[in-house]
Amino acid sequence: MVNSRKMKESIIFKPIGIIHSPFITVENMPIQSRSAEGIDGSVEIFDEYQAGLQDLDGFSHIILIYYFHKSNGFKLKASPFLEDVEHGVFAIRAPRRPNPIGISIVKLKSIDNGILSVENIDILDGTPLLDIKPYVPSFDSYPEAVTGWLTPHSEKVKSGVSDERFK
Amino acid sequence: MVNSRKMKESIIFKPIGIIHSPFITVENMPIQSRSAEGIDGSVEIFDEYQAGLQDLDGFSHIILIYYFHKSNGFKLKASPFLEDVEHGVFAIRAPRRPNPIGISIVKLKSIDNGILSVENIDILDGTPLLDIKPYVPSFDSYPEAVTGWLTPHSEKVKSGVSDERFK
Repeated sequence: MVNSRKMKESIIFKPIGIIHSPFITVENMPIQSRSAEGIDGSVEIFDEYQAGLQDLDGFSHIILIYYFHKSNGFKLKASPFLEDVEHGVFAIRAPRRPNPIGISIVKLKSIDNGILSVENIDILDGTPLLDIKPYVPSFDSYPEAVTGWLTPHSEKVKSGVSDERFK
Repeated sequence: MVNSRKMKESIIFKPIGIIHSPFITVENMPIQSRSAEGIDGSVEIFDEYQAGLQDLDGFSHIILIYYFHKSNGFKLKASPFLEDVEHGVFAIRAPRRPNPIGISIVKLKSIDNGILSVENIDILDGTPLLDIKPYVPSFDSYPEAVTGWLTPHSEKVKSGVSDERFK
């Protein structure tokens, strides 16, 4: 059996790089990378981790896992950007989460000297990067997945921008 | 400008639950949820976070973000399960990463009393859960993504099981 007390111990991570984007404040930021089509950004990997980038340039898309560093506390129920109805925090993608971890799938254009040029970025400038994984459709793509409360809003996602709700 | 020194500070997370699966050891575990079709598991959410599950049951697939708690250190270059050639750690999905964060997309069958019944689980029993996000194809599904070194191995993924390499 798992010892629950031990399971509640803290887990410590350290940033491996910094994400740069045109979004200096949360206002008017795209709510998802699909709303951020054509928006360029870059990901700076700290020197000591750059060797880990080998062969990543063969992938067209990558998964960025990062720390929502501007997220302040969390609420277990919140209204998402797309509607005024409250949902559980695990049923929405908002930043104010018990562990403020964000994931975004972005298009990888090139890698040069530890700097990744990416497209479709929906992330705040200066965000600490925790991990990068290659996007693999056979692991990650489920085009037929059912999306609950989000279904009637799927068209709005493309033009969706954020507001001050999550500051 | 971002202050790089500050960016390297530690980030602390706490588990929100525990993942249960038939995989007690790393050997013979599926290497991805797509290799784990039909394998049942469950996700136990700690009492204090269960309110955050509201409306998650409308989604057919969810993204589990977890801590590779058995991963011991990391190497910036490693051979993945699928071939003996070394690649950068950010171009593979192996557990031994600078920040040992795992993500898996699993099928959500039901939620009852803070326990999620899931299918297609490729995660070690007892793994600490950090976050859950709803899987949304318009954010997360890129079926045409190009997969670099992995391309010739895509068929093998379905039957792929792990070995002792990452203990």
